[in-house]
Order: sequence, then C-alpha cells, then structure tokens
Amino acid sequence: MKAVILLSGGLDSSTVLYQAASQGYECYAISFDYQQRHRRELEAAKAIARCAGVQEHQVVSFDLRQWGGSALTDEAIDIPEYRSLDQMSQNIPITYVPARNTIFLSFGLSYAEATGAQRVYVGVNALDYSGYPDCRPDYIQAMQTVFNLGTKQGREGKEIAIATPLINLKKTAIIELGNRLGVPWEETWSCYTGGDEACGVCDSCQLRLAAFAELGLKDPVPYALRHEAIGA
Amino acid sequence: MKAVILLSGGLDSSTVLYQAASQGYECYAISFDYQQRHRRELEAAKAIARCAGVQEHQVVSFDLRQWGGSALTDEAIDIPEYRSLDQMSQNIPITYVPARNTIFLSFGLSYAEATGAQRVYVGVNALDYSGYPDCRPDYIQAMQTVFNLGTKQGREGKEIAIATPLINLKKTAIIELGNRLGVPWEETWSCYTGGDEACGVCDSCQLRLAAFAELGLKDPVPYALRHEAIGA
Repeated sequence: MKAVILLSGGLDSSTVLYQAASQGYECYAISFDYQQRHRRELEAAKAIARCAGVQEHQVVSFDLRQWGGSALTDEAIDIPEYRSLDQMSQNIPITYVPARNTIFLSFGLSYAEATGAQRVYVGVNALDYSGYPDCRPDYIQAMQTVFNLGTKQGREGKEIAIATPLINLKKTAIIELGNRLGVPWEETWSCYTGGDEACGVCDSCQLRLAAFAELGLKDPVPYALRHEAIGA
Repeated sequence: MKAVILLSGGLDSSTVLYQAASQGYECYAISFDYQQRHRRELEAAKAIARCAGVQEHQVVSFDLRQWGGSALTDEAIDIPEYRSLDQMSQNIPITYVPARNTIFLSFGLSYAEATGAQRVYVGVNALDYSGYPDCRPDYIQAMQTVFNLGTKQGREGKEIAIATPLINLKKTAIIELGNRLGVPWEETWSCYTGGDEACGVCDSCQLRLAAFAELGLKDPVPYALRHEAIGA
C-alpha cells in the first residue's frame, strides 16, 4: 500500500513520515518550495526523506510571495519573537499563510491519485498551536469531502483518506512518539527564519524547545539563542 | 468589491471574467502555467485579461508533469480525437488532470484572502462535458466549506464565496452570454493541443465548434481542421 506524506522537514511531519513507514506503507514524500523565508527546511526534508528510505520525494515549486500576506512569504513583515504560549494562541498569527494547507493538500491529493496511493498523511496539530484555521479537525473533514468528490478515484468509491495521526497530540507526546520511531531530530528544521542555526525565539522554535525541555531532553538542533521561556 | 477570477483563456473562463467585470467587481485574474501541453492558452489568458481591464493578473507556475497522470501533462498519453458527445460523456476522460481544480481553487482562495476579495469566480460547467468530477455542484459545495473553515477570513465569518455562473449553462448559452458581454472570442483558446492553430478535433475544440455551429455563428479562432461532427 502506498501513502503520500506532506513533508516540511519539521518535527511533526518527520514523525508522521516515520510512522507511515513503520506501518508498512510505501512512502511518497512531497515538499513545497513556495519561496518561504525558511526554505532551508527543504534541505531538512530531503535529509529526512533519505533517512526514512522513501520510494520517491517530489519537491513542488511555486511562489507565494506573488501575493504575500504572511510573515513567511513577505520580507516586509517581521516574524514574531519571544511570545508566550498565551500570546500565540490568542489570534491567528501573522505567520499564517493564506490557504497554505489547502494548497499543500491539493497537490498531495493530485500526487496520490496519479501514484495510486490510498492515504495522504499530514502532520497538522490542533492542540499546541491552535491558531492556524487549516489545522483543525473540521477543516480536515471538509478536505476529506473534497478528496472524495473531486477525484476520479473518489467518484469510483476508492477513497484517498487524509491521515492526521498528530492532530490531538501535545508536542511532548509527538517527541516521545518520534523517539520510539527513531526520528533523527538533528536532521529536522522547525525554525521560521532561514539562518544557519535555528533562531530559538520564533513561535516554532519556542514550542519545540519548550517541549524538549519539558521532557528533560536536549534538542540536538543548533540554536542561535535558547530562550526556552515557555514551559521551561 | 474585489473578485478573483480563475482564467484559463478559454471560452468559459473568459465569459466569467467579463461577467464579473460587468457586475462592477474589481477583477484579479489568476492563471496557471502547470506545464500543460496547451500552454499556449496562457497567451490567450493574458490577452483576455488585458481586454477586460483587470486590476491585476497573476500567473502561478508549477509543474504537474512531475507525476503526470493525464494526457494534458504527459506527452506519452495521446489526446483523444474525433469523439462523439456520447463517447465523451461515458467515462472520466484521460484529459482529466488529477485534482487540478482543487489546486486551482486553492491558489484562488489564497490570492483572494491576501487581496481581500470576497468572491472567487470559476467557469466550471457540469452540463456539456460532465466527465470531470471536479466540475460538479457537490464538489463546488465541498470546496466552499473548505473556503469557510480553512481561512482566517472564513473563521471570522467573512465568507469568500465561490461563484460558478456557468455551471448549469449549455455551451450555446455560454456563447450567447459572452456575445452580450462582448467577449473577444478571437483572443480565446480552448484547444488541448499546443499548435499555432486549434486542432479542431480534440474534445474541447469539437464542443466549441459544435456550439458555434448550432447557433449559426462562425468561431473566429483559426482551426487546422473543422470536424464539427457533433451537433453540426
């Protein structure tokens, strides 16, 4: 059985890939170069795909800077730093990229149908960082209906199922799962900035650092700063 | 009020653009270079966008040949020719591109949210050529739910509505509508092949030629052949 895995190269999607592989799926990874500020994550995605022994890894390129609207695709918008978990969860953050997961899942669906895959894995998480609208269960359910109605396979009753194994897990539980699966954390990249080292102070870095700290573990990724304000 | 219009440069989407403009919308056109065999349609899209006086025209580039799966994205698969309307409507045709409209609508949604548009117009049609699963009303309704749940605007109750003014129109009715709106047919391109002249024998050419013929009108686009078997 084949599965498509949306792979950003971050902690969550890497864990998802390792889980799909451990369940015996022949894995087809797909990553996106959308001219994001942190395109460095694509190097991580390639390394993780290699480590996990995927069947194929597609990198799809397009340019979401064409209309921007997010701190990740518009250099004029600053990436928030040093925010508390409370601050992060109050509003949909400026790092939200309009319709990004809908675009990603659409390509994943296309790839799955062309490849004959029965599942599309995505590492969305609705708990730790619930700000993004396109990470929530009702949204995923709506996309599943699109998968069923908008494809040849779906119309023929051969469902391509969206799998979201992390959707209700805390970041600490994801790390524990990844540890059991042997995810090489040192190859992953979560930071929203594009430097040689992770910044340590953007929302993504802080959530990750806080979770490792809560577990009494050291995150092996090199950080410029280790703020660790949250949960430390 | 702003509207995003998915513009392929064909007869249907050009009519939709002219209709949105006639209704007073500030029009933001979006076209897709997905390395389709008939990329020549992008020249038509640019010409039509210019003629219609759009506010902005975005061309998004990506490569659906990466996984193919369609006669439009895989040179090894022949484009069907000389098919009757009956033959066309029996099965989902090989010119179906996996999840193409889902990808297109996702980008349209992203562009609409970043631009502050309230509508996304798409020229899908469920009547004349009902083979494509992603042209049917139930699919469009599912995408509307995705639009509502998967965006910041949608979660805040500011709906981005998918408008499908042609979904229940016959091709002849679309041409009559386009004539009333002043669509410059000579600038449009519907053919699935990429030559200097339209082929005249692919499904798309034949449907178009048959509709013009049924109305007693001459299609001003140059054709290599004019089969006109259907409805002529």
